[in-house]
Amino acid sequence: MFNAKEFIEKSLREIKIVAKDAKVISACSGGVDSTVTTVLVHRALGDHVLAVFIDDGLRREGEPEFVLRTLKNLEINTKYVDAKKAFFAAFRAKIDAEEKRKAFRDTFYKTFGKVAKEENIGLIAQGTIKADVIETVKGIKSQHNVLEQIGISPERYGYKILEPLKELFKPEVRKVARELGLPKEVSERMPFPGPALSLRVLGEVTPEKVAIVRKATEIVEEETKTLDTFQNFAVLHNDKATGIKNGNRLYGNIVTIRIVDSQDAVTATARNVPYEKLSRICKRIVQEIPTVVRCLYDITDKPPATIEFE
Amino acid sequence: MFNAKEFIEKSLREIKIVAKDAKVISACSGGVDSTVTTVLVHRALGDHVLAVFIDDGLRREGEPEFVLRTLKNLEINTKYVDAKKAFFAAFRAKIDAEEKRKAFRDTFYKTFGKVAKEENIGLIAQGTIKADVIETVKGIKSQHNVLEQIGISPERYGYKILEPLKELFKPEVRKVARELGLPKEVSERMPFPGPALSLRVLGEVTPEKVAIVRKATEIVEEETKTLDTFQNFAVLHNDKATGIKNGNRLYGNIVTIRIVDSQDAVTATARNVPYEKLSRICKRIVQEIPTVVRCLYDITDKPPATIEFE
Repeated sequence: MFNAKEFIEKSLREIKIVAKDAKVISACSGGVDSTVTTVLVHRALGDHVLAVFIDDGLRREGEPEFVLRTLKNLEINTKYVDAKKAFFAAFRAKIDAEEKRKAFRDTFYKTFGKVAKEENIGLIAQGTIKADVIETVKGIKSQHNVLEQIGISPERYGYKILEPLKELFKPEVRKVARELGLPKEVSERMPFPGPALSLRVLGEVTPEKVAIVRKATEIVEEETKTLDTFQNFAVLHNDKATGIKNGNRLYGNIVTIRIVDSQDAVTATARNVPYEKLSRICKRIVQEIPTVVRCLYDITDKPPATIEFE
Repeated sequence: MFNAKEFIEKSLREIKIVAKDAKVISACSGGVDSTVTTVLVHRALGDHVLAVFIDDGLRREGEPEFVLRTLKNLEINTKYVDAKKAFFAAFRAKIDAEEKRKAFRDTFYKTFGKVAKEENIGLIAQGTIKADVIETVKGIKSQHNVLEQIGISPERYGYKILEPLKELFKPEVRKVARELGLPKEVSERMPFPGPALSLRVLGEVTPEKVAIVRKATEIVEEETKTLDTFQNFAVLHNDKATGIKNGNRLYGNIVTIRIVDSQDAVTATARNVPYEKLSRICKRIVQEIPTVVRCLYDITDKPPATIEFE
């Protein structure tokens, strides 16, 4: 039986041993994994820790503000890095899911390496958890935060990596978050992938397409917040379909709604959401986003699908 | 109130007036519109009629055999034309929905014109109905069988056109079919678009992609035949998504299931199908088609979507 209190004590000891008197930079996206990681290193090392929020232009509505506010309330030194241009440049003309994940990962580490260099910090903490490691080793998906497991040397990017959660699954991470006294908005936060909305824009990732899926995501999250599911989101297809808006033909966008139940993200089932609810979400998306003409609901479990489309 | 018997009498008179002693060629795809048209001209003109079934490689499983058998049972002279190569050549590198519809239409009329010339027939009959005319005139979709309405001269293709059903909506066509004593398989046949499976393969239409959507369509039709809906079908996306098959990552195909209620195809509502049924269809599609990893259900009404995706 997992004991969060004991895990925290052991983890703080280990962080102190690895870091000694060095400064640590901690990548924080605002999700439960990276926030718990940041809080752990902060508890262990105090002001030797600098949290970094990289704004990749791929975050959900209001998310950058939420992350910065959370870290401020926790009294952790934080640096905001605007890297939107670098990310969208990296995605240019990339269509394949794995190429896009690699472009994200590479830009993420380059940006991070640059910050670490500027701050003269050689050790970084990040919120890798066990499911990330399993999927990357199995070759299912390249998780953005798993380097050693796939034979990439973090030193190539100029720093060493601290991954205090890499033996934990998601429910254990949440227990640690609660034990650390983090706000519910963090401890119960819905999983959100590292590469963020880039995984939810099929085909090339552009600021315009991200804006569409960001709005659709906001609608799905608003309408499903009482459902108590593992993950709820929207995906923007690259394919188009015919529709009719204001009496005219529109060859427009297709959005898929995905709502799944899962314990640990390793397997998942599509939720049987009442049709009236799905229909309401569809109507809002089509009405509130001018280019969208069609909404689909993903009815596939994992396996054979994955939770995210990419 | 529409009177099928009177319509038939009036229609036979008109066909005789237009055709006089000329031979007529009738395009028959096996759907209710084109079969009723073929039977009407056959009743009016007897052996002066030649039914032509163009095999475009885009028909559903078993459909060419069904059409030929039906026409044989009706004792109508029939010619089978294998035009698969010409159609797939016309679709090459075409991505846009309207371009694909135009490629279909052009190949359809070229093939037909060739047959008419070979047979030395200058008058063709086809099953255009009112909804086709309305949609094409409105600019929503180019229906393949509407020429005069959009200012294209049928003479360009070398023949004149007879459209006995162009003032009728679908329920009226079915009444005529019943009055003509056609088998239920024809009179109650689910609507199927002229450009057939090409509309249900997003992106470029290839024989491989048509084979996938043909199999998915067969599964959807089998599983939904008792639902008594207006139209049930499958669509193959051009977009791909990650999945897991036999424990390995597969960047595979996405299929959407579309099941709608409608009176006349001008408006339609997505059917609230029990989730267990949808889930069963999804599982069969994913299990029986190796490249498919994900199934979606279209929850959009018409408008703002159309029934078909293209």
